[in-house]
Amino acid sequence: MDKTIDDIDFEKSGGLVPVIVQDANTKEVLTLAYSNRESLELAKKTRKSWFYSRSRNKLWMKGEESGNTQEIKEILVDCDSDAIIYLVEPSGPACHTGERVCFHNELK
Amino acid sequence: MDKTIDDIDFEKSGGLVPVIVQDANTKEVLTLAYSNRESLELAKKTRKSWFYSRSRNKLWMKGEESGNTQEIKEILVDCDSDAIIYLVEPSGPACHTGERVCFHNELK
Repeated sequence: MDKTIDDIDFEKSGGLVPVIVQDANTKEVLTLAYSNRESLELAKKTRKSWFYSRSRNKLWMKGEESGNTQEIKEILVDCDSDAIIYLVEPSGPACHTGERVCFHNELK
Repeated sequence: MDKTIDDIDFEKSGGLVPVIVQDANTKEVLTLAYSNRESLELAKKTRKSWFYSRSRNKLWMKGEESGNTQEIKEILVDCDSDAIIYLVEPSGPACHTGERVCFHNELK
């Protein structure tokens, strides 16, 4: 089924939805970030990974400083319209630590 | 690197962390849900997908009613310790709609 941005339930988490960033080719989960309506519209329009930073209270694009941008191939929405997947082709490491993916720790 | 439950930043989102449920074999993202400290401890101990429901304000285990349980193979933590992945082997559909995965809609 197709959904539009008007279907997304931004209100459940104070204007934001969690965004899972997944490598479109390897299927690895790269990052979990957040989007508001504006950054989701930007992601859809520009096909780049746009988010909203909860700590800096501003829109940001992955790679805007590092150059490690992500090209969005597809945007998926879950059954409750309150979580998103950006399926991307990354041009470099996803993690600010320089690791390829953010989920590089095991819970012991 | 290994992390423990004491490392997890539950406070950033009011006692909860988002949990990405990913199929350990196919790498498909099945569901996004939430855990508090107690459900994460249960998940770690029982190797079943335990969560905290924001709408029902209670702990729940995937499959407790449907029988479609998920066996946890590994739990991953991200760089900021504020997001989790359960890598699971599902025994049935992940979605309450009966779909195999919750992310079955495309954003148009």
